[in-house]
Amino acid sequence: MPAKRRVTIAVIAQEAGVSVPTVSKVINGRPEVAPETRQRVERLLHKHGYQRRVSPGDGPVGLIDLVFAEIESPWAMEIVRGAETAAREAEASVVISVLHTHAGPGRDWLERIAARRTDGVVVVASRLSAGLQNQLAARSMPFVVVDPEGEPAGGVASVGATNWHGGLAATRHLLELGHRRIGMIGGPADMLCSRARIDGYRAALETAGVPVEPGLIRYGSFLADAGHDHGHALLSLPDRPTAIFAGSDMQAFGVFEAARQRGLRVPEDLSVVGFDDLPLAQSAWPPLTTVRQPLQDMAALATRMVLAMGRGEHPEARRVELATDLVVRESTTPITLSSPPQ
Amino acid sequence: MPAKRRVTIAVIAQEAGVSVPTVSKVINGRPEVAPETRQRVERLLHKHGYQRRVSPGDGPVGLIDLVFAEIESPWAMEIVRGAETAAREAEASVVISVLHTHAGPGRDWLERIAARRTDGVVVVASRLSAGLQNQLAARSMPFVVVDPEGEPAGGVASVGATNWHGGLAATRHLLELGHRRIGMIGGPADMLCSRARIDGYRAALETAGVPVEPGLIRYGSFLADAGHDHGHALLSLPDRPTAIFAGSDMQAFGVFEAARQRGLRVPEDLSVVGFDDLPLAQSAWPPLTTVRQPLQDMAALATRMVLAMGRGEHPEARRVELATDLVVRESTTPITLSSPPQ
Repeated sequence: MPAKRRVTIAVIAQEAGVSVPTVSKVINGRPEVAPETRQRVERLLHKHGYQRRVSPGDGPVGLIDLVFAEIESPWAMEIVRGAETAAREAEASVVISVLHTHAGPGRDWLERIAARRTDGVVVVASRLSAGLQNQLAARSMPFVVVDPEGEPAGGVASVGATNWHGGLAATRHLLELGHRRIGMIGGPADMLCSRARIDGYRAALETAGVPVEPGLIRYGSFLADAGHDHGHALLSLPDRPTAIFAGSDMQAFGVFEAARQRGLRVPEDLSVVGFDDLPLAQSAWPPLTTVRQPLQDMAALATRMVLAMGRGEHPEARRVELATDLVVRESTTPITLSSPPQ
Repeated sequence: MPAKRRVTIAVIAQEAGVSVPTVSKVINGRPEVAPETRQRVERLLHKHGYQRRVSPGDGPVGLIDLVFAEIESPWAMEIVRGAETAAREAEASVVISVLHTHAGPGRDWLERIAARRTDGVVVVASRLSAGLQNQLAARSMPFVVVDPEGEPAGGVASVGATNWHGGLAATRHLLELGHRRIGMIGGPADMLCSRARIDGYRAALETAGVPVEPGLIRYGSFLADAGHDHGHALLSLPDRPTAIFAGSDMQAFGVFEAARQRGLRVPEDLSVVGFDDLPLAQSAWPPLTTVRQPLQDMAALATRMVLAMGRGEHPEARRVELATDLVVRESTTPITLSSPPQ
């Protein structure tokens, strides 16, 4: 059986009914190609698994693109640190882009990157459309998603944390302390990592025989403001929760603020658990009980994966989840008589 | 008078006693040149103000290098956000390097950057040696220092904040509240921005007729650990200070922690002022009185300056200081009877 032959640009051009220079322009991200032609060529490049031939001037450029939807939380800094460390080990540098949208990088961005070349793209907490996936693949740009917003399309490599287990561990900790009315503040309703944390919360309650009350589950951004607003909403309920599990440390700090504004002490009147274990969690007051996710390790692994893909290696697994750990500090305590009656 | 002629590579080569390709190799950061030759050529390139000729393939590459000594504090994220915003406006991207030394980028780093090209370098809170300055200039790499560690060499463009005024304002605020024993935690003793804050502190005390006590001034890193350790040291003095001015918000959070560990309440038993006004200062408990420095604006300005220099424009000023502002929140209060006797 003959080895599968590498598809050439000429074959793609013939099948697409365009010239060889046109295919070349699509691959190199040049603008002067009609959109329909571009899409047809991209589909064919992807279908045939086209790979750029590696020529001497075509080696690694030493740049990894790290793409954020937003960088508003210190969470992002942990990701940058992990990616930068892994890139530096490989003598590469990290380019930061902030898209100000969760919809993933668009065509403009992609064409700029293609024009200057990249060794790979790490997309953070965002959504990758199937169209974009084709575009990246057509240009032989390896890419990995960290903490994907939705379910990544088939075949997309991604790195996450064991969010479901983290949600389970956080909620079981509160149940073991005697709490029964436990509020939950999740991230945006369509973010997969947030859904998994909420499902872990539900699973812990249900296996403990505690009914899940939809009114105790709130959705918002992962920032402190959302924790503050939803914290007030939960604490103003007639039968308020005695504990709140927040989907991020920043939200938990917002809950701290809401509790103080209502004259409630943490943890005496309200236990609070966060998620992330940012460096701040330890120096917060009170020091925050939280679910640690290894953000630096996640970003470093994604960066190493994308560098390996650039060398033509295939990742051992398309989806890797690193373990989360419950870190018990001082923001949680057994339920006391000063809490409202259950 | 004839216009000053642009120096060519041939002139440099002749004066250095080397071949034209050797000068070219130095300019392009290629490794195969003896160190002494390289230095001689770099000095001549700098002396003659050599500028690369701009050819079509030689336009902007759309990359600005942002170089950190460390990125351990959320402070760094504010700098990244500012630089990224300014770069994006110019359709450029930001490359992050973390050197893990305050000595400024070294030759290895420089040669990697020269090989892939950059539109400019923004060096953050670091030291630029005269040697490195020559190397950057020889390769026509524009560079600007944000918050330089030491006094930048003559002609180096830099952006900072009015640190002296900030130190003065913070200390005057505490004096107006009746405090007389005011501890000061500075950054590293050789960092210029820190020295300026301490000098502002001294100036406020002296103009108020309050003697400066050397034992009340401590030096450390700008991180929370240093605030914690020096906070304990200051609070264990027989005649402890009733207020502490910390050189950074992170240090101030460390002081909060030390105070709590000693059973002291902030602000009732100890007033604390920070410096930076990170987003966290507002949601800390108590909300932190601090000196705001416009970190995002500083980084954005440095990025715009370096992009303009890359287009051949000369910055209007080599040194720009953006204003600081005292932001009074809840971590400072008038001195009370519960404080130790003065």
